[in-house]
Amino acid sequence: MIDPVFLDTPLYRCEALEPGLGCTVSIKLETANPVRSFKARGTEVVASLLAGNGSRAVVCASAGNLGQALAWSGRGRGLDVTVVASRFAPAAKLDRIRALEARLELVDGDIEVARERAAAIARHDGIRLVEDSLDIETCEGAATIGLELAGTVPSFDAVLIALGGGALATGVGHVVKALAPEAEVICIQPLGAPAMTHSWRQRRVVTTDSTSTIADGVAGRRPIPAVLDDLLLVADDAVLVQEASIIAGMRMLLDHAGLVVEPSAALGIAAILEDRDRFAGRHVVTIVCGSNVDVAAYRRWVGAAPIHGS
Amino acid sequence: MIDPVFLDTPLYRCEALEPGLGCTVSIKLETANPVRSFKARGTEVVASLLAGNGSRAVVCASAGNLGQALAWSGRGRGLDVTVVASRFAPAAKLDRIRALEARLELVDGDIEVARERAAAIARHDGIRLVEDSLDIETCEGAATIGLELAGTVPSFDAVLIALGGGALATGVGHVVKALAPEAEVICIQPLGAPAMTHSWRQRRVVTTDSTSTIADGVAGRRPIPAVLDDLLLVADDAVLVQEASIIAGMRMLLDHAGLVVEPSAALGIAAILEDRDRFAGRHVVTIVCGSNVDVAAYRRWVGAAPIHGS
Repeated sequence: MIDPVFLDTPLYRCEALEPGLGCTVSIKLETANPVRSFKARGTEVVASLLAGNGSRAVVCASAGNLGQALAWSGRGRGLDVTVVASRFAPAAKLDRIRALEARLELVDGDIEVARERAAAIARHDGIRLVEDSLDIETCEGAATIGLELAGTVPSFDAVLIALGGGALATGVGHVVKALAPEAEVICIQPLGAPAMTHSWRQRRVVTTDSTSTIADGVAGRRPIPAVLDDLLLVADDAVLVQEASIIAGMRMLLDHAGLVVEPSAALGIAAILEDRDRFAGRHVVTIVCGSNVDVAAYRRWVGAAPIHGS
Repeated sequence: MIDPVFLDTPLYRCEALEPGLGCTVSIKLETANPVRSFKARGTEVVASLLAGNGSRAVVCASAGNLGQALAWSGRGRGLDVTVVASRFAPAAKLDRIRALEARLELVDGDIEVARERAAAIARHDGIRLVEDSLDIETCEGAATIGLELAGTVPSFDAVLIALGGGALATGVGHVVKALAPEAEVICIQPLGAPAMTHSWRQRRVVTTDSTSTIADGVAGRRPIPAVLDDLLLVADDAVLVQEASIIAGMRMLLDHAGLVVEPSAALGIAAILEDRDRFAGRHVVTIVCGSNVDVAAYRRWVGAAPIHGS
């Protein structure tokens, strides 16, 4: 179901990062594809099933990457795609959603407001609502990353996964726990958007009133109960990191790996930077899940501090 | 023979580049691997054969990427690797060669001086000299990129290949001409390092006294006659581009594709920018062949002009 352009993504050890991190680091790179994030693995499944059953239209709320991916997957299958996003989402993400011929509706609020509006559109128009992380296709798509990781030789000790709505964490986590149970599944959120992490720790849904983070891709406030249930089954830990660590992670990935990443994709490196002892000497895989950044903002983030090494 | 980490690299259409270029653009990405260039495809072949016949040591001259790749391939097979490079090569490349445990010898001259010194070491020590582009393994390694391209659906109209010593151009070119003969094989060099292009145009070896380009990876002065013979068989054209176009290409790849590339890897985009009419409406594949840059220099190049679009 999934276009091969999104599968079998690069997985490689990045030794140049290791002196700065104190552990063996492998990168699973989900950005070298037409939508620059892992999200199309899931939208390919959704759109294939919809096209197969004769559906004509679909709607989703998105922080920007799911919408882009659904627009790509739907366009190729003749689906009318509507994406609801926050007007505060990165312009680069919104521009790409429009360029991919989706109808883009902006709400004057955050992703949770967009979710409500997308649900209303689905009810009114009688069309399929794709709910990221709740809908099994979005998790199954992400789970294919887990399959690719679990086939890795040599094996890894931990996988670091950006935690937002939870599709990536539960999808990858389920597979890793089934096929490589010795590996730790560690989810990472920004301190400024901690709802799912707090929920995981307290084993009940905890919401927040607002978020404050540059990691726009993972900035939810209202965890979905069923997703939390899944996350409780597969995550070994959920960790919160500071904004400065996210920026330091982005800068390390640029300076030592030559990778442009969006803030959410640097959460794994940020987690290592904040707890080197935990990872010392271990083999850690970090999923670089997206690279859709506003270039001006990116330059501000990575350009603001001294350049490390060469 | 080739570690799979270097094979089946991403090949994907990058629509965000297309409004600025006026043609359909696909990227073949050779940077998401442990040495951040395509060169390990060839050094894996070399090192496998050497290890198989009981060799213990090998030497090469390198602008920086071949040396890094040979160091990686040799280290895993118990070979002592010596790399001779210019002391003016990017520090990032030299640092990585050292980090990969090769013996690095610097010469006070350019790649041609390094080639002479490497040959002298090989004679003196009685060890294998790897001559990039002349030694068939280096071309065969690059040719595997051609195999991956020729299997592409939909097919492409032209492939843009950075031209330095010629391994990438002859390796990919041979395969493309055999398996996808309708596709144009177009080689690109900087105006500041035009020796091989002049040689191709005049059908005889033309040397230059010096080079002047930021594209350090392709800055040779003395084309190898046997490589020119091969290039004459497979290249449909050889094109020279200006430094400003190379920088514009690097900036477009950053701004619209989220890719950090070294100057040599932007030659294809530079060629489109300089001759849009030639490529208008066609499907062009450009091989992004390396991303080993000194970060400070890279930031100077891409940061010096206005940011285009988002």
